[in-house]
Amino acid sequence: MNFDQKIDRRGTHSVKWDSMEDIYGVSPDDGISMWVADMEFQPPQCVQDAIKKMHDHGVYGYYGDEGPYREAIRWWMDTRHDWQIDPSWIFTTHGLVNGTGMCVDAYTAPGDGVILFTPVYHAFARVIAAANRKVVECELVNNNGRYEMDFDAYDAQMTGNERMVILCSPHNPGGRVWTKAELAGVAAFAKRHELILVSDEIHHDLTMPGHTHIPTAHIDGITDRLITMTATTKTFNIAGSHSGNVIIEDPDLRAQFAKRMGALGLSPNSFGLFMATAAYSPEGAEWVDALKAYLDENRQIFDAGINSIPGLASMPLDATYLAWVDFSGTGMSRDEFTARVQNQAKIAANHGPTFGTGGETFLRFNLGAPRAQIEEAVARLKSAFSDLQ
Amino acid sequence: MNFDQKIDRRGTHSVKWDSMEDIYGVSPDDGISMWVADMEFQPPQCVQDAIKKMHDHGVYGYYGDEGPYREAIRWWMDTRHDWQIDPSWIFTTHGLVNGTGMCVDAYTAPGDGVILFTPVYHAFARVIAAANRKVVECELVNNNGRYEMDFDAYDAQMTGNERMVILCSPHNPGGRVWTKAELAGVAAFAKRHELILVSDEIHHDLTMPGHTHIPTAHIDGITDRLITMTATTKTFNIAGSHSGNVIIEDPDLRAQFAKRMGALGLSPNSFGLFMATAAYSPEGAEWVDALKAYLDENRQIFDAGINSIPGLASMPLDATYLAWVDFSGTGMSRDEFTARVQNQAKIAANHGPTFGTGGETFLRFNLGAPRAQIEEAVARLKSAFSDLQ
Repeated sequence: MNFDQKIDRRGTHSVKWDSMEDIYGVSPDDGISMWVADMEFQPPQCVQDAIKKMHDHGVYGYYGDEGPYREAIRWWMDTRHDWQIDPSWIFTTHGLVNGTGMCVDAYTAPGDGVILFTPVYHAFARVIAAANRKVVECELVNNNGRYEMDFDAYDAQMTGNERMVILCSPHNPGGRVWTKAELAGVAAFAKRHELILVSDEIHHDLTMPGHTHIPTAHIDGITDRLITMTATTKTFNIAGSHSGNVIIEDPDLRAQFAKRMGALGLSPNSFGLFMATAAYSPEGAEWVDALKAYLDENRQIFDAGINSIPGLASMPLDATYLAWVDFSGTGMSRDEFTARVQNQAKIAANHGPTFGTGGETFLRFNLGAPRAQIEEAVARLKSAFSDLQ
Repeated sequence: MNFDQKIDRRGTHSVKWDSMEDIYGVSPDDGISMWVADMEFQPPQCVQDAIKKMHDHGVYGYYGDEGPYREAIRWWMDTRHDWQIDPSWIFTTHGLVNGTGMCVDAYTAPGDGVILFTPVYHAFARVIAAANRKVVECELVNNNGRYEMDFDAYDAQMTGNERMVILCSPHNPGGRVWTKAELAGVAAFAKRHELILVSDEIHHDLTMPGHTHIPTAHIDGITDRLITMTATTKTFNIAGSHSGNVIIEDPDLRAQFAKRMGALGLSPNSFGLFMATAAYSPEGAEWVDALKAYLDENRQIFDAGINSIPGLASMPLDATYLAWVDFSGTGMSRDEFTARVQNQAKIAANHGPTFGTGGETFLRFNLGAPRAQIEEAVARLKSAFSDLQ
């Protein structure tokens, strides 16, 4: 667990490093990549060993007997999240963008409205629009640098055409761990408007000290309209395995989902199965605890640096390694603050507007990197905005 | 390239070995698994090296820049199949069962008829039925142990409700490499009935001496209704990577497919991309040539043995490693010949009826295994049917 180790990812088909120049004009040779949500770390040794074992055996045929894989997921949800699931509730999708697409496909029809609490993970809106469904943006309230929900406003927005709401819990970006009262509010909202509730909990393992993630499934009376999505990929930094868990307790919703999985011929790849089975283990848990402590220190260093620059504000993260920085206090145009970050600080960070309404004055910075890189990024940003001091 | 090496796959989550007892009642400890279509061989060293390189780097993040991957596919189709494609025509699906499901989803509607030439690969009918489309079986004619098509009969079957035909070329099972005249017949049939033609060419690399696979795309005037599916997974025995190529020349068909890929959030896993790029190479080609020679010898040994048993007939394979054995000449019931194979010979082979109409008296045997295993299987089958001598 040497999170300080710098690993050169240039030229390894890392989209984060090898596409940053095309997209942000920041060279990987002297730039820092802080956009795509994967980390600069190797996964725990148990996951590395799983790959080595596959390689050494060398016959990569069709995978059978998902029993131990499903049991590992069940064990993780129970021991890490106090969530008791049955292994039969689990579907393995090809990552959670695919998981989202499958939910939209299975439970809504073209023209239906799908609600997002924006700003939010950009792939949701892309998938909804590609499926010819309508993106309904319910904007989060930025209450002194902390996102909150306003259900009175959302109720007033509803037209009766909405069929689904996608919640990101913990929230990306902004890093909110929703309280039980807030989750109950979302559940009541879903019931009030007869919506399927898709709870994307991919960041559930990456909470900061003092914050406890609550599975949406813990809200009373919601399971008959609830789909939960989780994955090893974010927690263990193995996004390349493209494997996600879609967990459905309700038998009718499960049957609908299973039907579409069969119709689309979706079944998991062996690498994702072996890696997930290895990751959801006591050794994996120990690694995650160490990772969380490291990310918390990164966050403190980053936030202290950013918040010392007049006009910049980094939202306090309850969870995730994705810092959400508001540049509105600078009074600069979006073009200007973005140019300073990209051209002067030479940092590639996600542009706020891609996350939907409410993201206009923000950039998202990925803190899942060696400490030295975070410190260097802070120093560069201080320098790029030094005239504000 | 030591195809004679015996690799023990028991307890490795191989569905072929670890599920055979549940499905066929044949123990992996003294039985021979000849059902699932993966081979007992390791892939070429270049593919093994690609996995080792991923492991040694150890950061399994999001994959970017598919340029070299797409170029490798283009090069392979050009040099191995004299088929000139543009890299932009390629979609990467999660294997070809997913590829088939995506075609059915993108180009047909619930209730539409989808035509299969049966007996044929069993997953097609499963996917079509799960999508609430109608399976239309056009039965192949068994002309002295060789499958042929009868378009007059197929024309008479059409109702006007059919929207798609799925061709398996080379054919599984039965191993036919379709001639140019036969492919032109399929193309004319598709045009006559205004059908989308999906050409599953996953076995295109595995031809026997004296046979040359012809891409359906080589038939004049068909590309405006043609979808071609190929993959590294069958050729290089890397089914676990769950990665397939769907190749579409027509821009309108391509746009429809792209739309559904986006809506379902499908993008490739890194393992499949790295393995395919390594496999579609001169070193991979050399390995395939050696594999084909080995499989040809396996086939000759198997067929000579089987055809020496009165009442048994193994279809001559133009391609594939999947022997299709007709037991009708024994006069036995299906239960009896199946019981002899499973209980006396202790061999797990696919049951013919799962391949649709025309498969009733057949079993399918997988010959992608070390020579000693093929010889042992022949000896056991001779013994199990020794009373027929």
